[in-house]
Amino acid sequence: MIDYLSCSSTKKLIELALEEDIGSGDITTQSLVPRHALGQGEIVAKQDAIICGLDLARLVFKRLDKTIDFKTGYTDGQTVYAGKTVASVSGALAGLLTAERTALNFLQRLSGIATKARRHIQSLRKTSATLVDTRKTTPGWRVLEKYAVRVGGAANHRMGLYDGVLIKDNHIAACGGILNAVNLARKNLSHLIKIEVETTTIAEVREALEANADVIMLDNMDLDQIKAAVAQINKKALVEISGGITADKLAVLASTGVDLISMGALTHSASAVDLSMNIIQQTQ
Amino acid sequence: MIDYLSCSSTKKLIELALEEDIGSGDITTQSLVPRHALGQGEIVAKQDAIICGLDLARLVFKRLDKTIDFKTGYTDGQTVYAGKTVASVSGALAGLLTAERTALNFLQRLSGIATKARRHIQSLRKTSATLVDTRKTTPGWRVLEKYAVRVGGAANHRMGLYDGVLIKDNHIAACGGILNAVNLARKNLSHLIKIEVETTTIAEVREALEANADVIMLDNMDLDQIKAAVAQINKKALVEISGGITADKLAVLASTGVDLISMGALTHSASAVDLSMNIIQQTQ
Amino acid sequence: MIDYLSCSSTKKLIELALEEDIGSGDITTQSLVPRHALGQGEIVAKQDAIICGLDLARLVFKRLDKTIDFKTGYTDGQTVYAGKTVASVSGALAGLLTAERTALNFLQRLSGIATKARRHIQSLRKTSATLVDTRKTTPGWRVLEKYAVRVGGAANHRMGLYDGVLIKDNHIAACGGILNAVNLARKNLSHLIKIEVETTTIAEVREALEANADVIMLDNMDLDQIKAAVAQINKKALVEISGGITADKLAVLASTGVDLISMGALTHSASAVDLSMNIIQQTQ
Amino acid sequence: MIDYLSCSSTKKLIELALEEDIGSGDITTQSLVPRHALGQGEIVAKQDAIICGLDLARLVFKRLDKTIDFKTGYTDGQTVYAGKTVASVSGALAGLLTAERTALNFLQRLSGIATKARRHIQSLRKTSATLVDTRKTTPGWRVLEKYAVRVGGAANHRMGLYDGVLIKDNHIAACGGILNAVNLARKNLSHLIKIEVETTTIAEVREALEANADVIMLDNMDLDQIKAAVAQINKKALVEISGGITADKLAVLASTGVDLISMGALTHSASAVDLSMNIIQQTQ
Amino acid sequence: MIDYLSCSSTKKLIELALEEDIGSGDITTQSLVPRHALGQGEIVAKQDAIICGLDLARLVFKRLDKTIDFKTGYTDGQTVYAGKTVASVSGALAGLLTAERTALNFLQRLSGIATKARRHIQSLRKTSATLVDTRKTTPGWRVLEKYAVRVGGAANHRMGLYDGVLIKDNHIAACGGILNAVNLARKNLSHLIKIEVETTTIAEVREALEANADVIMLDNMDLDQIKAAVAQINKKALVEISGGITADKLAVLASTGVDLISMGALTHSASAVDLSMNIIQQTQ
Amino acid sequence: MIDYLSCSSTKKLIELALEEDIGSGDITTQSLVPRHALGQGEIVAKQDAIICGLDLARLVFKRLDKTIDFKTGYTDGQTVYAGKTVASVSGALAGLLTAERTALNFLQRLSGIATKARRHIQSLRKTSATLVDTRKTTPGWRVLEKYAVRVGGAANHRMGLYDGVLIKDNHIAACGGILNAVNLARKNLSHLIKIEVETTTIAEVREALEANADVIMLDNMDLDQIKAAVAQINKKALVEISGGITADKLAVLASTGVDLISMGALTHSASAVDLSMNIIQQTQ
Repeated sequence: MIDYLSCSSTKKLIELALEEDIGSGDITTQSLVPRHALGQGEIVAKQDAIICGLDLARLVFKRLDKTIDFKTGYTDGQTVYAGKTVASVSGALAGLLTAERTALNFLQRLSGIATKARRHIQSLRKTSATLVDTRKTTPGWRVLEKYAVRVGGAANHRMGLYDGVLIKDNHIAACGGILNAVNLARKNLSHLIKIEVETTTIAEVREALEANADVIMLDNMDLDQIKAAVAQINKKALVEISGGITADKLAVLASTGVDLISMGALTHSASAVDLSMNIIQQTQ
Repeated sequence: MIDYLSCSSTKKLIELALEEDIGSGDITTQSLVPRHALGQGEIVAKQDAIICGLDLARLVFKRLDKTIDFKTGYTDGQTVYAGKTVASVSGALAGLLTAERTALNFLQRLSGIATKARRHIQSLRKTSATLVDTRKTTPGWRVLEKYAVRVGGAANHRMGLYDGVLIKDNHIAACGGILNAVNLARKNLSHLIKIEVETTTIAEVREALEANADVIMLDNMDLDQIKAAVAQINKKALVEISGGITADKLAVLASTGVDLISMGALTHSASAVDLSMNIIQQTQ
Repeated sequence: MIDYLSCSSTKKLIELALEEDIGSGDITTQSLVPRHALGQGEIVAKQDAIICGLDLARLVFKRLDKTIDFKTGYTDGQTVYAGKTVASVSGALAGLLTAERTALNFLQRLSGIATKARRHIQSLRKTSATLVDTRKTTPGWRVLEKYAVRVGGAANHRMGLYDGVLIKDNHIAACGGILNAVNLARKNLSHLIKIEVETTTIAEVREALEANADVIMLDNMDLDQIKAAVAQINKKALVEISGGITADKLAVLASTGVDLISMGALTHSASAVDLSMNIIQQTQ
Repeated sequence: MIDYLSCSSTKKLIELALEEDIGSGDITTQSLVPRHALGQGEIVAKQDAIICGLDLARLVFKRLDKTIDFKTGYTDGQTVYAGKTVASVSGALAGLLTAERTALNFLQRLSGIATKARRHIQSLRKTSATLVDTRKTTPGWRVLEKYAVRVGGAANHRMGLYDGVLIKDNHIAACGGILNAVNLARKNLSHLIKIEVETTTIAEVREALEANADVIMLDNMDLDQIKAAVAQINKKALVEISGGITADKLAVLASTGVDLISMGALTHSASAVDLSMNIIQQTQ
Repeated sequence: MIDYLSCSSTKKLIELALEEDIGSGDITTQSLVPRHALGQGEIVAKQDAIICGLDLARLVFKRLDKTIDFKTGYTDGQTVYAGKTVASVSGALAGLLTAERTALNFLQRLSGIATKARRHIQSLRKTSATLVDTRKTTPGWRVLEKYAVRVGGAANHRMGLYDGVLIKDNHIAACGGILNAVNLARKNLSHLIKIEVETTTIAEVREALEANADVIMLDNMDLDQIKAAVAQINKKALVEISGGITADKLAVLASTGVDLISMGALTHSASAVDLSMNIIQQTQ
Repeated sequence: MIDYLSCSSTKKLIELALEEDIGSGDITTQSLVPRHALGQGEIVAKQDAIICGLDLARLVFKRLDKTIDFKTGYTDGQTVYAGKTVASVSGALAGLLTAERTALNFLQRLSGIATKARRHIQSLRKTSATLVDTRKTTPGWRVLEKYAVRVGGAANHRMGLYDGVLIKDNHIAACGGILNAVNLARKNLSHLIKIEVETTTIAEVREALEANADVIMLDNMDLDQIKAAVAQINKKALVEISGGITADKLAVLASTGVDLISMGALTHSASAVDLSMNIIQQTQ
């Protein structure tokens, strides 16, 4: 599983997050909490959820104060129930209070995405379809949100514009047809990159097949079109459906025999999981 | 109104966003679209929404390619209706295609927050209560999300830990009481900073009043407690309620006479507005 | 007390300082001092001073070489007398010699400011006036110099343009009067931010009072005007005087009953304290 | 003359300066000044001074708002008299107000150093001695302060540890004598780097001469020792004196025939020049 | 073709290059060349070469001084003959002299790689084999060197560890066999990523085939083994050979029917092309 | 010897190198190697070489994973023979595999330069001439490549434009002659900087001598001219020859009595040394 923590983008986002919250200083804590006071806190789930981002939360606390200890009995992807303690932190009280909000803000968002992904993959259980995310992620959060999608049990589409080819209508127009586009892409790119073509009609599906596209995306097609396309393609390429995918349609869509269902809402419209931190002990 | 675009955090987030999506290059576009091809595109709303982030979207396009032109007849805060063109972009086709997703990702999130804020402030119209956000924002997005809240018509609580004092239970415990905490804060901080105290009981409200807190927050109190607290405070401090605020309770809570209602979901659980970009013309 | 060390601006300034001094390498030390030679040094005060910046000096040494040990019997704000050892450092001789100048440069400047602040607050001892700094700080040094001011015993005005409102003549002109300006600010800003208005005449003082300004600044007023203004304001707002404040006038000005006296020279014209580092032992 | 503006350290310091002052936004200006209001301001000297940093001040205004126009009839190094307008700025009123303090903070400090340098070189006029600065500069400001020293008419010692060799007592001890140290340095370093040796006794001066040091520094020697050393060296190396140099001793010291007199106070203890900006016109 | 100039890594490398060469200033030019002197220069090839990096060289000059004009009649990939002028530059003389070395250093290295690639692909002309690079690039130069390889006419293997799967012996050992490794990779990764397996024996080739690897690499096999492997694979996967590929073996190896020949020396051991810049006119 | 590891440019280059190779993650290793698997590897020389960059390679491994242990019996500058183990690494298997290529890429390039330098200095053994590098280094690698040159036994010319003066024809033209140029440089620069003048004729050599240049470079002169110039200069300045220096001419050129021979190919055209890493043990 890709290690989302060691990417430089994760480090930059943590810096940005702490800078924007702390700025020139946590004036409440630094005015009121003695430098050497110690504390112990618990991060508690206030709703059932798939937890995600525990190592990231640890990193945030430790980035603020290396001596803070972060302990958890959970690993990312496990279910936590409302009222349960997800993790406990201990160390400098000032550090705990200053880092609390940023750590929770990371954890609540990633857990929200993992929880949403887990819920939606239930609908696909009896099919061979895979639920995948899109590039509709929160700017700055690509690696993190795609990690949460995997933790939730769904899969990733390409990470960005650099690691997969998706040929859309405007690319096709620029090349004068699907065949030209696919050939040109294959000529210009590494032999390790697969080529996906976006189609909106059965005629385009046929062209993509003839061009030997590795993956064919059916964009905003209705159920009948999808069935026709799947039949036409007949396992000669992977089939992805995209556009207007909502939770209630997932089971039916998956039963058509498509390989991949991509859903932007997995990342762009997940609600945060309700988590809070309570200081349960403090000494000076 | 605070200029959200000129903050260094906004610039860093745009860099992060373009880096994570483009990486070593948009291999599809760069393989298929001639360097000198031109295009024109339209950003279209696919649902009714309060639009927010237009200048930011412009900045993303221009960051990628200075020669791209971004035109809009809207300003942030206006309502756009489903099917309407929000903005049009023109210039290098490759630039338009490469920047599209990142620009839309910013726009759809900020518009989602502004739309949510606008909807909720309707509930407060006949009261003197102000709806405010919290620090439960997406890490890296503090300045942007607080801007969207204002655009939607709600107001901002403090920006971060650096520009306002909010004394919570653990700070109080560290100081041995509300009075000590407020006095210590006043002694240590600039004379331009107001002091807010979080309370959970009427007894604490009374202590905060005696300490001359500028603002008193009633944390997770029920309706009766809130009414009692408002009566007790009697305009001698601003009153904020916080915790468990949901859309359906807003009107009733506002009618109690509180000054401020803070709601984390404004920022942490807003859904993205559905927007898309269509290339309507391209030439080589 | 605000932790000046954990701000990202402090880290950036330390990097900048070491880069500008060391560049591609300390060619003297690296040519002449064996890599494994050890040394022990003492930082000695060559004049009486209020010491300030000890933890920062430690950070500079450790940033260069994690294994250097920095010990001191002093804490920031204490008086050190000429000839006394302020701190001792030990570890890699090369590291000690390379970091010496940068560490002393930080220490001598912050101690200079703390010393100056301590001297000036003597003049205010029998009054209720507080001596505060301004935004006339050395670019890049805002957080550090404001820390030194506090260590010296004076207080801070706002940290920057982001955490306090100070309405000056041009803002007033842009809004068409003090009343409009104060109302507009209150409407646009967080409820935790106080509003200060700069005035130059008694008429303006009156207007600011009517607008319920939280703080009224008397800019460059003479002693009689100040007395009149203090009488007029009559505790309904905090009173700050600013402009042309020199050491010899402090006592008289403070006796007028003003709350705050701001003085740019605290930071922009403090002389460095004379400190030096002697290597007292070295072995290879 | 070295172009102090194009160094990356200057750019970083400007960013740091604007970030620390503006942070998440100039809340006063952005709340009160309409986005499209225009203004014109004058930067006025409130004391006689050698002006220094005009191009830097222009850069600060333009960094905030590219459309601001900065005009001046002066060039760095000229004398400005109290009451005179040093430069005029025009453009977006909000930009002028937000950048004002940072621009002035740069200008007042560099002008302070140039003014101090100009004053001190008067004492050396009838001698062949050159007044030089040291590495006792404000961390982060090395290139800028050394520029101001040159503008004032004094000269620069080495820029940092990387572009000149200064062998001090601890380096000598590590090498087992001056001769070994000089030889080792010459062997290890580029043929374009000169070698200076710090001495405290006439015996050491003699050793340095024998080692063919390019420059010999007399550290904290009294007048008689200096005269003896100058006689001993007899033009076979450049002679620098350093340590405890104060304004009143300059003329006498210079008359001893030394080549260079280094003075840390040039940079570490210069007072800021009093400058202010007045908005003389504003329109909406 | 991937736009190598707009990657953030290219921008960072240009900054690094100018910083390391210019540091605190080009002391020769800035001391001797008047600020307003203008000049015109020519970049001349001193040997036949495939030119590569022209836009990058332009960027370096313009990064130093926006007003410098860079003109060329060549485009990357064309042959330039010894003695010919590759490009001409005009503008501020100081800027031309300061940027010269860095611009040439970029140009000479990229042209060296393109020239080497062009020479080697001649050996493959009558075969269907493609010459590809490896990850053995100069650290910091990945995107640039891979661009030069394409300009020379060879092709790129994966850009980095993030956009292609290459399963080596240690990965296989960690998974307990090729089949397990390929299946696990397919399960964990985006459907757009192809999977390549490194093999050293015919038995391993067979296993890789059974696992449906997309590409099979024959590592350090001799000619007979390669022929046997190609026959075994029989177009069911792409075949790459790697390890110990030297110029003299290319034609023979290519004739075996392999699809890809990877050669680290393309990037890690290319000699620089000899280029120089002459100022042909200067005026003050 | 200058510590090449602690320069900020080295740190930035390591970051750039790891970012460009790992990007959003090492998808092969992270998919296939269990997080807690351990391994041990050996870095083996596949040709005789002067090893250089061992501490840098260690830094790369540790930057990826602090717990990796890097052991070596060699120090930079020693000869390693083909087949010998240069260093061994142990720790997290995933970290070893992900860092391998970047660490080797650094090591193979620096060792290539050191090996080339060592070979060439043999030709100068019986002379007093010193072989020096130039500024023709790989952009971003200045400090590293100059370190490798020293490790190989040759010497460094100036590090960059900031630490040495080299007056070329265009500088001379801008000043109206060599004498003016040298005098102007001496006036403007620190007394620790030596001045070198580039000459192409004996007449220019004479002018440079009269101007008291510290070093005189003979640019592209033939053997007879060089001999004449050396005689003319007669030890009154250091003599450097430059331009068209190839390996086969070194001995003859050195025998002319010149002090310095500069050779760009030392850095811009060194071939990489062949090194590889084998995992010799792995456990889960």
